[in-house]
Amino acid sequence: MGSVTAVNFEQQNAPGIVARLSLFKGASEETIASIAAAGQFVNLSKGEALFMQEDPAEWFYVMLSGWVKLFRETMDGAEAVIDMATRGELVGETAIFEDGLHSYCAAAAEKVEVLRLPSSLLKKAVNDEQPVALALLASMSRHRKRQSREIESLTLQNASQRIGCFLLRHCNQLEIDAVDLKLPYDKSLIAARLGMKSETFSRALNKLREETNIEVKGSVVQIPSIGVISTYSCSACSNEFPCSDLQTNK
Amino acid sequence: MGSVTAVNFEQQNAPGIVARLSLFKGASEETIASIAAAGQFVNLSKGEALFMQEDPAEWFYVMLSGWVKLFRETMDGAEAVIDMATRGELVGETAIFEDGLHSYCAAAAEKVEVLRLPSSLLKKAVNDEQPVALALLASMSRHRKRQSREIESLTLQNASQRIGCFLLRHCNQLEIDAVDLKLPYDKSLIAARLGMKSETFSRALNKLREETNIEVKGSVVQIPSIGVISTYSCSACSNEFPCSDLQTNK
Repeated sequence: MGSVTAVNFEQQNAPGIVARLSLFKGASEETIASIAAAGQFVNLSKGEALFMQEDPAEWFYVMLSGWVKLFRETMDGAEAVIDMATRGELVGETAIFEDGLHSYCAAAAEKVEVLRLPSSLLKKAVNDEQPVALALLASMSRHRKRQSREIESLTLQNASQRIGCFLLRHCNQLEIDAVDLKLPYDKSLIAARLGMKSETFSRALNKLREETNIEVKGSVVQIPSIGVISTYSCSACSNEFPCSDLQTNK
Repeated sequence: MGSVTAVNFEQQNAPGIVARLSLFKGASEETIASIAAAGQFVNLSKGEALFMQEDPAEWFYVMLSGWVKLFRETMDGAEAVIDMATRGELVGETAIFEDGLHSYCAAAAEKVEVLRLPSSLLKKAVNDEQPVALALLASMSRHRKRQSREIESLTLQNASQRIGCFLLRHCNQLEIDAVDLKLPYDKSLIAARLGMKSETFSRALNKLREETNIEVKGSVVQIPSIGVISTYSCSACSNEFPCSDLQTNK
């Protein structure tokens, strides 16, 4: 962590934030107070790391704003983006089950604010308080479903369909009319998140443009019809549209 | 389930099997007894379904022998194999967190024996007994790690490297000399499991043969050197060889 700015909780409304986390609904007041008292707010600039793979997991993180990239690096030096996390999501919380080591790297994809909380207190709360264990189970189950969907998408959708799917998952899926979608992060990161080289991404985006009449203007995608993209992308997916697994804006 | 053969537990050693499951280590004797008393052994022939996507999850399953294919179907009629389960693994246990519905299909890939146990009793045990909740958390955490590895592999490894990786993960990784590996299930299913069309699989297998001097004879792969495949496949992976996440033979 080194140079990042950490601010103790007293200066901000930490107990309130901790109490509102679905992870700690049903936890004892004592647990919430001790976790809030030990936590800190951290601001990161683009590129700064929250932690590296194999680092001892002293903290876990609650995303407050911005996007964090979760990734792993191969011996070849290539990078696999395994997830992107944003407001309301937890990062690094499962290390308490993995010998206390992080199994991936996490770095800020832009200016990011997180709340860091001690892993040791999470571990204690999970062990001592049934409601916390159950909340963590529910969260991991949702995550598992999302990962299965992702494996399916990598297996069955072509590159253009995957981009269409990404756009749909970032739209308000109840819109019927045209939508202007601001891309959540830059195109090179979207390509990496979708497991594509940048040339593949450009070609696939062009094809999607031809198939669905979308217009890309800088970081805004003008979508004339959500239905047309859905017809194109969702035919190669086992979920119905709107996506039932969407709990957050991803 | 319809026509499958179900045998009540009394005829076999059900309480012993349930008590040995890591999920129920630390559960009360009463819980183990009630689960064992309600469970049944089921035999399936190749192709028979354990359950379909969106089925109400009356049961969850403990694999005793054979391989079960977990998959989802798209509107186009394509099939994504999201996992394969074998001896010692649980199937369908997470439905208790998903409105009680299975989020994928499960079907026997060959002759299969499973033990089926009531989901309602699992849900009760998870809610009432902390050790069961913690054991399920540990199991889901291992599964999450495996899925992340899979997403990484689909993103970064080429088709030949993925086949090499599959072979390595089914070998005894502590062997140094040549190994004759019996493929766990047939090649078309391996191709589907790796997210490849059969033509892609054939081409990629040929390339792997040239790169690593393996010989494929029916369902046996003769591997002259595990080190050579590892050098070829693991360079595009963030894990070290031997694979640290291997808990079972997958």
